[in-house]
Amino acid sequence: MPDQNTQKPVIILVRPQLGENIGATARAMKNFGLDDLRIVAPRDGWPNPKAHEMAAHADHIIEQATLYDTLPDALHDCHIALASSARRRDMELPSYTPRSAAQYMTKALPARTAFVFGQENNGLSNEDISHCHAIVTIPTDAYSSLNLAQSVVVLAYEYFTQDLPEQINHSTKQPTLSEVQGIYDDITERLEGTGYYPEGKRGTIMRQHFKQTLLQSQLTSAQIRSLRGMARALQGNHNENSSQNY
Amino acid sequence: MPDQNTQKPVIILVRPQLGENIGATARAMKNFGLDDLRIVAPRDGWPNPKAHEMAAHADHIIEQATLYDTLPDALHDCHIALASSARRRDMELPSYTPRSAAQYMTKALPARTAFVFGQENNGLSNEDISHCHAIVTIPTDAYSSLNLAQSVVVLAYEYFTQDLPEQINHSTKQPTLSEVQGIYDDITERLEGTGYYPEGKRGTIMRQHFKQTLLQSQLTSAQIRSLRGMARALQGNHNENSSQNY
Repeated sequence: MPDQNTQKPVIILVRPQLGENIGATARAMKNFGLDDLRIVAPRDGWPNPKAHEMAAHADHIIEQATLYDTLPDALHDCHIALASSARRRDMELPSYTPRSAAQYMTKALPARTAFVFGQENNGLSNEDISHCHAIVTIPTDAYSSLNLAQSVVVLAYEYFTQDLPEQINHSTKQPTLSEVQGIYDDITERLEGTGYYPEGKRGTIMRQHFKQTLLQSQLTSAQIRSLRGMARALQGNHNENSSQNY
Repeated sequence: MPDQNTQKPVIILVRPQLGENIGATARAMKNFGLDDLRIVAPRDGWPNPKAHEMAAHADHIIEQATLYDTLPDALHDCHIALASSARRRDMELPSYTPRSAAQYMTKALPARTAFVFGQENNGLSNEDISHCHAIVTIPTDAYSSLNLAQSVVVLAYEYFTQDLPEQINHSTKQPTLSEVQGIYDDITERLEGTGYYPEGKRGTIMRQHFKQTLLQSQLTSAQIRSLRGMARALQGNHNENSSQNY
């Protein structure tokens, strides 16, 4: 996510038909930290109560949205405009993926950038696209027409997440190796004399059956403590020490 | 995008309330190449005509969707289930980003994997999540509640695009450096004697004013040819040779 203090992309909807999509766009903008919504010649006029219905907690974005007659008007203070569109074989324009578009816009900061979206049934016209610097195309399977607000979701999501760390956020309560060894030793000891493993096979069997289970299962410290508590309970000595673990 | 012949993630909607969201989910699935939709206890019954209205060209996904009474039933043949949810501080589960979730699922192939989504107003219950292996959390700004179908869009998009090349798809019709030099020489020559540059300053001025413009503007071959055609026309000799370029 780029610095909060810098300019964030403007979202421009050109001739949107359904108020629901304008509302769903505003909600997605709020989810991903955008707030400047501009609407060019909406089919059903403006304001539109259906936009509010779909906006969830993004009513302020709907209320502060600005209305324009033409796309050039809406772009008047923008330095870079990217047109959201499927591939256009009839126009020679650079074509970005959503991820590379996000990088392009961030590199252009503090320039004011805009993502431009067309109407639901046939997208942006060639005339609309001629006002933009490049196309951004969301990769799709055979059916390339995304719902309008869903296109906004993908581009806003990529912009928002571009600098977030990508690692898996596993719990920070992973057990240490000594905790793992502790339960391993404890359970092994408890099984002694139960007949679970034949004489002399203890090491092999337990390593195979239990040590790898512990290491590969990515249990948390708390889960490990629970297993020890269960083993203790199964042997009928649940109260053998004062620190109970469920 | 993983191999087309392998298992793709199942999408499971648990207790969805609005048919529109089921339809919008199906459309997003079709956009990103998924087709196995499972619905657990939809509020308004099934089938639901509103789902068809929002499905665009994904009617077949709606028609082939399967209905279940419980989440464990819907998961019966799945090997790995990831619950789409905002961070849950009350449960100790690994938490994936959408991108790392896609990688995790792909590495698990040919296991059958599932993304599980909760109802619109309050998401998945702790009981629902207890049937899943991990949580996948879509990073958001302060407002973390995504529209149901928009959550599906983000996870399906990340799964679909994970192995797609990330480079910018600039036009392949970039000019060669000799084409750039050609128009540079041509225009420089045409300006000779027009008074555009003072005696002796030709090289400096043209390099500063025009060569860098050509190199930095990323024009295509066709645009370069157009510029030469315009220059020729401005000098009143549009027909000086037979290959006209507009």
